Amino acid sequence: MTKRTIPARRFIKPTFEYLIEKKRDGGEFTQEEIRYIIDSTLDGEMPQHQLAALMMAIYFSNMSAQETADLTEEMMLSGEVIDLSHIAKPKIDKYSTGGVGDKTSLVLVPLAMASGVIVPMMCGVEHDYVINTLEKLGAFPGFKGQMPIEQFTNQLARIGGAIVQQSDALAPADAKFYALRKETGTIPSLPLITGSVLSKKLAEGSEGLVIDVKWGNGSFIKDLEQAKQLARSMTRVGRSMKRRCVALVTDMNQPLGDTVGTSLEVKEAIQLLKGEGPEDMKELVLKLGMEIVRLAGVAGSTLSAKQTVQRHLTDGSALQKFKDLVKAQGGDTMFIDHPEKFPAARHIRKLPAPKRGYVHTINAAMIARGVHLLGAGVEAAAPTGNHNHGAHSHGHAKVDHAVGVSEIKKVGTQVKQGEPLMMIHYNDEAKLEQALEYFKNAYRLAPKRPTPPPLIVERVA
Amino acid sequence: MTKRTIPARRFIKPTFEYLIEKKRDGGEFTQEEIRYIIDSTLDGEMPQHQLAALMMAIYFSNMSAQETADLTEEMMLSGEVIDLSHIAKPKIDKYSTGGVGDKTSLVLVPLAMASGVIVPMMCGVEHDYVINTLEKLGAFPGFKGQMPIEQFTNQLARIGGAIVQQSDALAPADAKFYALRKETGTIPSLPLITGSVLSKKLAEGSEGLVIDVKWGNGSFIKDLEQAKQLARSMTRVGRSMKRRCVALVTDMNQPLGDTVGTSLEVKEAIQLLKGEGPEDMKELVLKLGMEIVRLAGVAGSTLSAKQTVQRHLTDGSALQKFKDLVKAQGGDTMFIDHPEKFPAARHIRKLPAPKRGYVHTINAAMIARGVHLLGAGVEAAAPTGNHNHGAHSHGHAKVDHAVGVSEIKKVGTQVKQGEPLMMIHYNDEAKLEQALEYFKNAYRLAPKRPTPPPLIVERVA
Repeated sequence: MTKRTIPARRFIKPTFEYLIEKKRDGGEFTQEEIRYIIDSTLDGEMPQHQLAALMMAIYFSNMSAQETADLTEEMMLSGEVIDLSHIAKPKIDKYSTGGVGDKTSLVLVPLAMASGVIVPMMCGVEHDYVINTLEKLGAFPGFKGQMPIEQFTNQLARIGGAIVQQSDALAPADAKFYALRKETGTIPSLPLITGSVLSKKLAEGSEGLVIDVKWGNGSFIKDLEQAKQLARSMTRVGRSMKRRCVALVTDMNQPLGDTVGTSLEVKEAIQLLKGEGPEDMKELVLKLGMEIVRLAGVAGSTLSAKQTVQRHLTDGSALQKFKDLVKAQGGDTMFIDHPEKFPAARHIRKLPAPKRGYVHTINAAMIARGVHLLGAGVEAAAPTGNHNHGAHSHGHAKVDHAVGVSEIKKVGTQVKQGEPLMMIHYNDEAKLEQALEYFKNAYRLAPKRPTPPPLIVERVA
Repeated sequence: MTKRTIPARRFIKPTFEYLIEKKRDGGEFTQEEIRYIIDSTLDGEMPQHQLAALMMAIYFSNMSAQETADLTEEMMLSGEVIDLSHIAKPKIDKYSTGGVGDKTSLVLVPLAMASGVIVPMMCGVEHDYVINTLEKLGAFPGFKGQMPIEQFTNQLARIGGAIVQQSDALAPADAKFYALRKETGTIPSLPLITGSVLSKKLAEGSEGLVIDVKWGNGSFIKDLEQAKQLARSMTRVGRSMKRRCVALVTDMNQPLGDTVGTSLEVKEAIQLLKGEGPEDMKELVLKLGMEIVRLAGVAGSTLSAKQTVQRHLTDGSALQKFKDLVKAQGGDTMFIDHPEKFPAARHIRKLPAPKRGYVHTINAAMIARGVHLLGAGVEAAAPTGNHNHGAHSHGHAKVDHAVGVSEIKKVGTQVKQGEPLMMIHYNDEAKLEQALEYFKNAYRLAPKRPTPPPLIVERVA
């Protein structure tokens, strides 16, 4: 673990007013100015109201590619940077902007491990009602998502992967920025998102990063063009920080796979680790997996990458790595061999189609909110909470791992009146009533078959 | 004095995040939302960092004419609104955005009083190094610029005018806004300037307002187009609040008149009150005075307005009103009859022209800074101070009333090498050395006669 070692240079501190006005008027910060802003944020020298004004000025005036790279680097250097150079294997991580029903990481991490890639994954808190990977792994009794950094690196050396909660020691400046941004309408700033995500991801010690930028009604990025810009911004900054980076811009206009919920999604992930499961998830895992093995240098050609990924999914080696990971982090692997033993919800009922037709659109955010209301979410994920990435404590005790939805009829599927649009797993009638409002309103049926949205929109390298 | 009496309506409080995001995205606030923002600012419910982000969002997204009017009205209603309806004469005030060497108010207030107009003038703190009207009146031993509102209205009823420091009881929301704006780079927002100025001016009880919007190197508005926009914004809001309003956009690319300093400017004002004095000041006093008497309804036509103003300047009635005002506020009027008795500086020296030529440009702000360094300014006017309009306490004790500059050679004047560009009145050699740097750099000489800038650029009614 290394901290910033850049020697102090002659730098005359500007006033915070000057820095705000410079950005307000479209000026470009020097690296020293950015470092000063980060340092002053960390030590509390820069008052919150001035930092808030600066954030809003950045929102409107933007940052250049160089500024964004400097911001990311300085935020990364604000805390510990994990050194994994003693592990003589390629180290690649994956980051997703977050989506509904996205259980990709549960499959990708063991898949990459099976392919000889080290995956040092740390998870942040997801946006709004989206369930994050650690919450899903919480379905395994005994699973621990928090550990000291030393234990994390030891596990990486031993089994090749780990999925843990973001350490507070990494990029502490981001935690301060993020808490402020949540309250000041400055979350959707491209350079600030880039800096926030990459400063933490690049502090984890990986040499490369595969990024899944999701756009659509289930993502916090509703606009495709903005998603593409974010993909370009992240890969550009990654490159300028000497990391191998590839981003895929993917669809999040309906849930991914057939399930949303914690143990329901884990069960789907186990299927995928056996080479089975729904088509959209299989495609996404394949494409992201291929990017990982190619970035790692494990596979040279596209064909070889595809073969590598498919082999590890069908020969049981990825599944075995999943067991290794769950076991290493205290989880009961009996559930991987016997997924049917995950506690089931007391009730399962269908969401009936109100008329015949084709599923035209699904509002994925509404599905997520409904599942959250059934009890699948943690308290802190509620929109009123003023939590931040770094300081957040996961309230696993409160999560009902049995609830969720399954057999989701996807966009383009034809249904008869009364046929299930999905199956709802619930334990509480009152919660069901609330959730049903969201589920019903999430679906739009139409008489004509819609054009299904492309899953992978763009690859940015 | 009246406070807000609008009945509470059904209004569901939005979150501050919502309000910030609404403005960030170009939305238009309702009057109720603006009232909520003002109320939450006053009672401290809205945190400073969220208010700062909102201010910056307003800077970038602007406000509509209706929003600006609502903002002004709600800020005005945040405090006391002086009721002068018991005084059966027209009540007109004058506001200037502030300029170097601008002693207009010292002449205009008594001139309007002599013309039968009530002038309830309250002064805010000027920008940077500009000396405000009350600081100039401080040259009279014993003069008091602070008084309770009741005494203020009594004086208005008795002699027709008063020049006092802004009362903290008026528009307290503005004091909070302004303190924050100074630190967050949001001073130059047109709707915020409009709301700040007019909320206080319209709380003073006048029925009409003549506004002098100055543009140029000696104004905080450097851009002519922005000055015109501010003039339009202010008159529009004034009208929508049922006040008669006229604005003149005037030149502030060189000092006004021949002098800068406190007693030096008072002496020039006394000359003007006798119908004498420099041409530019005479013209500005004439034009602003004509606007006042026409707004007041004292004069109907342009010709009649001009005659009224000129008569009161030459017949001694304006000068007599000046004596009344100074006396009413505790000042020694002996100095009005014998201006030569104002204490003189120990030293007077010329600023020699470094070469022959025409005065091409004068940086008025540099003249002001130089005069400030000689000792003519108060501490709080220094740029490092985080004072605000409302809470500011004038440090008259620290002002050296004898120092300043006189006989300023104006733009277009031909000078020989070594001929004085102006006379410097100083008491301290060390201070002179510092000030000289500014004075020297303020002047640009050129071989050709420049086109003199028009004093009055536009009239906005």
